[in-house]
Amino acid sequence: MNRTLGVCYYPEHWPEETWAGDARRMAETGLTWVRIGEFAWSKLEPSPGKLQFDWLDRAIDTLHAHGLKVILGTPTATPPRWMLTRHPDMLAVDAQRHPRKFGSRRHYCFSHPGYLDECKRIVTLLAERYGQSVQAWQTDNEYGCHDTTLSYSPAAQEEFRNWLAQRYQSPDALNTAWGNTFWSMDYAEFDEIDLPNLTVTEPNPAHVLAFRRFSSDQVVRFNRTQTEIIRRHSDAPILHNYMGRVLEFDHFDVGTDLDIASWDSYPLGFLSDRLGAGDAHKQRYLRQGDPDNQAFHHDLYRAVGAAREGAPHDGRWWIMEQQPGPVNWAPWNPAPLPGMARLWAWEAFAHGAETVCYFRWRQAPFAQEQQHAGLLRPDSQPAPALAEAAQVANELKDMPDTATHQAAVALIFDYPSAWAWDTQPQGADFTYFDLMLDTYRALRKLGLSIDILPSTTTSLKGYKLALAPGLATLPEPLKQALTDPGIVTLCGPRTNAKTAEMAIPVPLPPNLPGLDITVARVESLPPTEAIPIAVGHVIRWFEHLEGSAETFAETIDGHPVIVRNQNQFYLGAWLDQEGFVALMTDLAMLAGLEITHLPEGLRIRDTATHRFVFNYAPEPQIYEGTEIPPAGVHWTPL
Amino acid sequence: MNRTLGVCYYPEHWPEETWAGDARRMAETGLTWVRIGEFAWSKLEPSPGKLQFDWLDRAIDTLHAHGLKVILGTPTATPPRWMLTRHPDMLAVDAQRHPRKFGSRRHYCFSHPGYLDECKRIVTLLAERYGQSVQAWQTDNEYGCHDTTLSYSPAAQEEFRNWLAQRYQSPDALNTAWGNTFWSMDYAEFDEIDLPNLTVTEPNPAHVLAFRRFSSDQVVRFNRTQTEIIRRHSDAPILHNYMGRVLEFDHFDVGTDLDIASWDSYPLGFLSDRLGAGDAHKQRYLRQGDPDNQAFHHDLYRAVGAAREGAPHDGRWWIMEQQPGPVNWAPWNPAPLPGMARLWAWEAFAHGAETVCYFRWRQAPFAQEQQHAGLLRPDSQPAPALAEAAQVANELKDMPDTATHQAAVALIFDYPSAWAWDTQPQGADFTYFDLMLDTYRALRKLGLSIDILPSTTTSLKGYKLALAPGLATLPEPLKQALTDPGIVTLCGPRTNAKTAEMAIPVPLPPNLPGLDITVARVESLPPTEAIPIAVGHVIRWFEHLEGSAETFAETIDGHPVIVRNQNQFYLGAWLDQEGFVALMTDLAMLAGLEITHLPEGLRIRDTATHRFVFNYAPEPQIYEGTEIPPAGVHWTPL
Amino acid sequence: MNRTLGVCYYPEHWPEETWAGDARRMAETGLTWVRIGEFAWSKLEPSPGKLQFDWLDRAIDTLHAHGLKVILGTPTATPPRWMLTRHPDMLAVDAQRHPRKFGSRRHYCFSHPGYLDECKRIVTLLAERYGQSVQAWQTDNEYGCHDTTLSYSPAAQEEFRNWLAQRYQSPDALNTAWGNTFWSMDYAEFDEIDLPNLTVTEPNPAHVLAFRRFSSDQVVRFNRTQTEIIRRHSDAPILHNYMGRVLEFDHFDVGTDLDIASWDSYPLGFLSDRLGAGDAHKQRYLRQGDPDNQAFHHDLYRAVGAAREGAPHDGRWWIMEQQPGPVNWAPWNPAPLPGMARLWAWEAFAHGAETVCYFRWRQAPFAQEQQHAGLLRPDSQPAPALAEAAQVANELKDMPDTATHQAAVALIFDYPSAWAWDTQPQGADFTYFDLMLDTYRALRKLGLSIDILPSTTTSLKGYKLALAPGLATLPEPLKQALTDPGIVTLCGPRTNAKTAEMAIPVPLPPNLPGLDITVARVESLPPTEAIPIAVGHVIRWFEHLEGSAETFAETIDGHPVIVRNQNQFYLGAWLDQEGFVALMTDLAMLAGLEITHLPEGLRIRDTATHRFVFNYAPEPQIYEGTEIPPAGVHWTPL
Repeated sequence: MNRTLGVCYYPEHWPEETWAGDARRMAETGLTWVRIGEFAWSKLEPSPGKLQFDWLDRAIDTLHAHGLKVILGTPTATPPRWMLTRHPDMLAVDAQRHPRKFGSRRHYCFSHPGYLDECKRIVTLLAERYGQSVQAWQTDNEYGCHDTTLSYSPAAQEEFRNWLAQRYQSPDALNTAWGNTFWSMDYAEFDEIDLPNLTVTEPNPAHVLAFRRFSSDQVVRFNRTQTEIIRRHSDAPILHNYMGRVLEFDHFDVGTDLDIASWDSYPLGFLSDRLGAGDAHKQRYLRQGDPDNQAFHHDLYRAVGAAREGAPHDGRWWIMEQQPGPVNWAPWNPAPLPGMARLWAWEAFAHGAETVCYFRWRQAPFAQEQQHAGLLRPDSQPAPALAEAAQVANELKDMPDTATHQAAVALIFDYPSAWAWDTQPQGADFTYFDLMLDTYRALRKLGLSIDILPSTTTSLKGYKLALAPGLATLPEPLKQALTDPGIVTLCGPRTNAKTAEMAIPVPLPPNLPGLDITVARVESLPPTEAIPIAVGHVIRWFEHLEGSAETFAETIDGHPVIVRNQNQFYLGAWLDQEGFVALMTDLAMLAGLEITHLPEGLRIRDTATHRFVFNYAPEPQIYEGTEIPPAGVHWTPL
Repeated sequence: MNRTLGVCYYPEHWPEETWAGDARRMAETGLTWVRIGEFAWSKLEPSPGKLQFDWLDRAIDTLHAHGLKVILGTPTATPPRWMLTRHPDMLAVDAQRHPRKFGSRRHYCFSHPGYLDECKRIVTLLAERYGQSVQAWQTDNEYGCHDTTLSYSPAAQEEFRNWLAQRYQSPDALNTAWGNTFWSMDYAEFDEIDLPNLTVTEPNPAHVLAFRRFSSDQVVRFNRTQTEIIRRHSDAPILHNYMGRVLEFDHFDVGTDLDIASWDSYPLGFLSDRLGAGDAHKQRYLRQGDPDNQAFHHDLYRAVGAAREGAPHDGRWWIMEQQPGPVNWAPWNPAPLPGMARLWAWEAFAHGAETVCYFRWRQAPFAQEQQHAGLLRPDSQPAPALAEAAQVANELKDMPDTATHQAAVALIFDYPSAWAWDTQPQGADFTYFDLMLDTYRALRKLGLSIDILPSTTTSLKGYKLALAPGLATLPEPLKQALTDPGIVTLCGPRTNAKTAEMAIPVPLPPNLPGLDITVARVESLPPTEAIPIAVGHVIRWFEHLEGSAETFAETIDGHPVIVRNQNQFYLGAWLDQEGFVALMTDLAMLAGLEITHLPEGLRIRDTATHRFVFNYAPEPQIYEGTEIPPAGVHWTPL
Repeated sequence: MNRTLGVCYYPEHWPEETWAGDARRMAETGLTWVRIGEFAWSKLEPSPGKLQFDWLDRAIDTLHAHGLKVILGTPTATPPRWMLTRHPDMLAVDAQRHPRKFGSRRHYCFSHPGYLDECKRIVTLLAERYGQSVQAWQTDNEYGCHDTTLSYSPAAQEEFRNWLAQRYQSPDALNTAWGNTFWSMDYAEFDEIDLPNLTVTEPNPAHVLAFRRFSSDQVVRFNRTQTEIIRRHSDAPILHNYMGRVLEFDHFDVGTDLDIASWDSYPLGFLSDRLGAGDAHKQRYLRQGDPDNQAFHHDLYRAVGAAREGAPHDGRWWIMEQQPGPVNWAPWNPAPLPGMARLWAWEAFAHGAETVCYFRWRQAPFAQEQQHAGLLRPDSQPAPALAEAAQVANELKDMPDTATHQAAVALIFDYPSAWAWDTQPQGADFTYFDLMLDTYRALRKLGLSIDILPSTTTSLKGYKLALAPGLATLPEPLKQALTDPGIVTLCGPRTNAKTAEMAIPVPLPPNLPGLDITVARVESLPPTEAIPIAVGHVIRWFEHLEGSAETFAETIDGHPVIVRNQNQFYLGAWLDQEGFVALMTDLAMLAGLEITHLPEGLRIRDTATHRFVFNYAPEPQIYEGTEIPPAGVHWTPL
């Protein structure tokens, strides 16, 4: 497979006379792809209906003339100011009822019909004009960024009521499904149902979950509206650039309308801003990023991307924006360790990325992101990442074609579970994403490669170990797949603990065929409480298990923590990292997997043909006798 | 006296065919009382005026048929959705001007006249129908829960103006009382006076205190409206279920309209969510609850309940909701130590409770509280607390009738003082409740039993030691009672430091007859500052005392901290726990009380005939040669 | 020069029969000045147009009769309640759209034209009546207090648009200046431009900076409106009482319309509430205040005050409010160490203050500030500060006239830089004020006296060392002055890093003539990261420097941190205090300054004729063989 590099470029930010020089330098650097246009609506249509596409024609021509391929973004994340005059109520509204005003980006509500029409109009114009000339499309930009998925606008309220009417058909059915009798919350008509914000105390979790589902569906609808138009005029693949740790909409659902998934990877900003990690961890990885976070998202978006024929594990995916230097948006913004801009790209390729685009070509000296580094400095001098990009481009030439192979380990990831535990964490730090990452990290410390799969998975054929922790509602086909006696499987904590309407199932969870176990009681534990087990501790969450299943691990004072029946395991707790590694070691050995206890910060990824080793540690580490420097990348044929 | 157990039950949540079985098991468990109906408005009146009381008739009949007594709750804490259509402006409004919307409970403003009329209507209907059949009544549910006492709605504004006109008669009188000249804040008409929210900086504390008084009075009025109706149709006692550490309305005032006080005791949720305690304390008592918090509220609500004839210390009170297992609403929700559901009940009885009702019979698998444990699991299997409740029921049979006796120690508790120091803490951690609990805890560590009394107390006859710390405005009768030379008394810090209009009195505080002392200056101290005294430290608050009273204790550098004249003491500081215990030891010995320095976590309560010993510690403790296990309850005749 | 004491007094708070006695005691204490009237609008005009000035006539007469001079405050910070009836939209509005309501003070928007007219009216009436009788004027009170500079009201929006039209002349010019093309943020008309609040993510920093400039200009306009009127009727000097660490408006700009600067100095409240200092520092200086904070503001306001002829460093300034004891508004409010009310006054005089007024004469027992100490207690007994004030008055009699001399060290302070880094800190703790105070503190630890100068400074003649850290946009004249080869100068970090329109200049910063250095990249560092240099560490901020300038200091691993060309230095980092002291030591020695490493808490200030030594430490310190007790003041002729 041909791996390529690219870059994000904003011709509208620079004098036209500089475009050709830029394109030439891009080509010289070894770049293949250039993404353009996704914020340029006000330049394309400075006033309503007054279209100015000529500059974009010339920009695309210039890039093509230098052999570059173009990804054209639809500009719908930045409607111009005049749009607000036409549709004053198109803004999203936050939970405190504040309109989210014009003046930056993403100032629209997914549910507003008038804005949706405007989007259809501009996308149609672009698709008609460039459908045959550009090599790829990007819809909008970073759905959900700046907490824009959930909107409490009048438009959202109206659409939510329609959505509820569609789902439940009658208010009585809804009342029953939600258990509205609980606090006299019954509705007589759908039009009585409000959005679940500003209630006196917490609203019905079923109400919240419905609103979360609806909000996700609105993103899917918005995106689909664009892809349907583009496909009418173009055969080029369509992508969207997702973000890291955005869980508010179901990326698998959006992905069904796209050809390729992509995501925007900012390892340092992420570590500083969004990762619930301790100070020591953040200090150690300050200039490298968390050693598992990027890989996790790579594996996740490989699952989100449309799969290659006959290979459900092998979805198509890109990095659309790769951090090249310090960014502007995290609480603190350090510079990457030299070599990391190369390591991050190679790690993406090792996880199956087709293309890695750096963001952005030249640092803009003005507006919101003026402190965001590019491959060039604002004065057009090379920033440090330019040479690293060129190095990757060179290395790619000598790299044999490598394909993604199916991993031995499968981890199920499910967006609605994130909504469920967000709605009803029961313990303040019960976060689905952290549970997934803690599990994933433990597997990776053992040198394992992992496939992430959606909860719609119906077969686990080919896997030796499969895990579905925290999956709130286990779909029947997956539940069956998890009972395959030839695979070591792990469910829990909280797996299958809720019905689709956010109630506790009776009989009690987890209701797993083949495993006689009942969660009789759950408790959440504050950070001061850790219950010792043989290796490690139970933290955050502890389930009291009853039933005839064999106890595999227990607390020091004799309460079962992990139970099993043959290859089928259930974990009734959240474990600390020591505990998770011990458990994964046992499971992997039972599954017949070869494991390696890797040095701190070293990580492995196997492709079909090669083993890649990445050193995220700030000091050299030894792998099989080879010293790998900080930011070092090492590969050997398998 | 006959002590009984009970439970909270929601027939409307369960199929009618299960009611009889439930009632039978309740009776078999040894329960006597069942509270029902308090959230069932939408089932009683699904649309305006369409009444459906037949199911409630049958539910009550079923319970009665199994020998159970019924407490019927008025459903006014959960008006149905159609009520909002009739009265769109009935919602409370928060200080940020957000309406507190429908979708959970307590979505009403106490000041809204239209909603008050609806409450009269439904209460009248219930009282007429069930006035002769039920054994007790509960008004509404948990007044003040979810911060619902204070409302900044238009209805509240209008009623506040009326209340002010009533209290002050003329704007000039109000201006003078409040000192409005200070920043040109004078009013010419009552209608110019706004609610004290969203001012540029803090509003006049006299303005705030008036609003706090008004808000409390609105709760009293709301409750009285219901009791007056019920009494017209029923002789059964009327209760309300108060909460822990809710200080926004004066429970003594509400109590004058009720027959029995009750409160909802959630020791673990309380420890996790509301107690300003350090991590070590929270960790130690994670599964038992704070060892003094429950007892404090027991003694408080004994004072709030209507007193038995000739025994002002012996008010009637219940536990209406007793935590049986993990709850759903605290930041973290651990399970109680085995035995605690028994210990908590016995502790309540030892403090004079007539009845302890567990909340709730069966865990609901749906809606907001689906993670709240009951005596039964959602699948109707016994949860751990069921056996403990049955054990208590059995033990009660063998227990001799014990009566509450007057304690030797009196502690004055005063809601307006909490409002005063909340309004003007002067130091960020000067909290009235904490001052009371710190004082109470020190007394309890010495093995003392305590009566809590209101500030309307006019005689302290029979007490040997009486304390009134932090009582903002000392009423004249109590002031006189505190000068009884036969009683050791302690005032301060901040006792009598404000006039009824929230000003500093001149002559300066504390103005105590018989004690020549003046608070010349006050200072608040950050957590980093602790001033050493002979035993312990001054923390948080320190008063500079002048006058001829004898110095009883002083700082290491010679400033008086405690002064006295004979038996009359004044404490010019907040003390750390070591200091409070030393002071209480001295006062108790002077008062001729027998004290015991109890092991950490052990607590004593004496009834008229028995001494009860409770072990809150997570390890066994020895009391007079007897080892008491964790969660152990021990009693001996006196 | 004649140094005097004064006090703030509120005749309207006290019975008229007490005025004469108060005035007599003031005179006996040795006070010269009395400030009155600044909150008395409702007493002067109880209803619209109904004027009652007679009481003020008598109050002024009484003070004059006792030989006291009067500063009369315009009452515009506290418009009466009826003003709101006339101008309901005159309130400021916060960023969350909440009106900032009546009920305390400063309830007005600087941009409201109707309120501005009312201010003109009342100021005209006062100026006409008292223009010839009072000895000084104060405009309004504490501009910017309670975050009142920035308002998001409709009036502010309208004025902002006018201000933008004036500044940019055309929307296209504004679009270009702000780089609005970045996210399609272009405007077609000025009326499309909203205030920069509630945007989905951060607004354009150029938009924010324009709003900050506008908001500062509104304060200047408001103040000027008053001074123009007063000057028409009075020759008495006009002052305003600024606050500490208020940076929202440009005090230099306001100062151009005033004769004398003054500020309100509350050392203990400031330490507790506003100083970003660690716990150990706050504990050590709990009762003394930060040892550099007062001096810093003294030097700053000396620069803000109108300079004496031919001596630009010698502006006229006062303390208008000096803390006398515990205040009411900080999180915790301890009492000052005995002697501090004297020390603070002497420190102000040593820095050039003409007058120090204590706030306030008698503690008010009512309303918001009832817990704020005065020179008298509420019962008219002396508070501790009264004797200290009398002592200072006595000492002043024997004190030779001392003048301010030009210091050897100049530090440039620039309000727009505070706005720039507030708008775009890039690291969460990059605060302009802290950078200035850290620099100033290091100089003071070496015993140096400092002149603070505005960025409009065009000549540094007479200085030996000049520093301009963090000055966002270096004006051309200052840039030239900083290249004077006879002066040791230091720029950086971030000096000249932005254009006037908040963009990154190209060529890249710092663009300093004579110093070949480029900031190739910047990074911000979290608190966990400290990069060691020879002495001390780089913290918070680190710039990657390229160019031919000589490296003066570097990190342990060899990156330049400080570079130089002869006497011209650039610092590419924020240093910890150890690093700053080491750097200032080097620079001072190079500049030929005599330095002394002072004991912790001891500080020096030299006047033209004397050296003053102040001991802020809680223990005695030795200075040149003399033991100076805590709160001690020591002076010797130079």
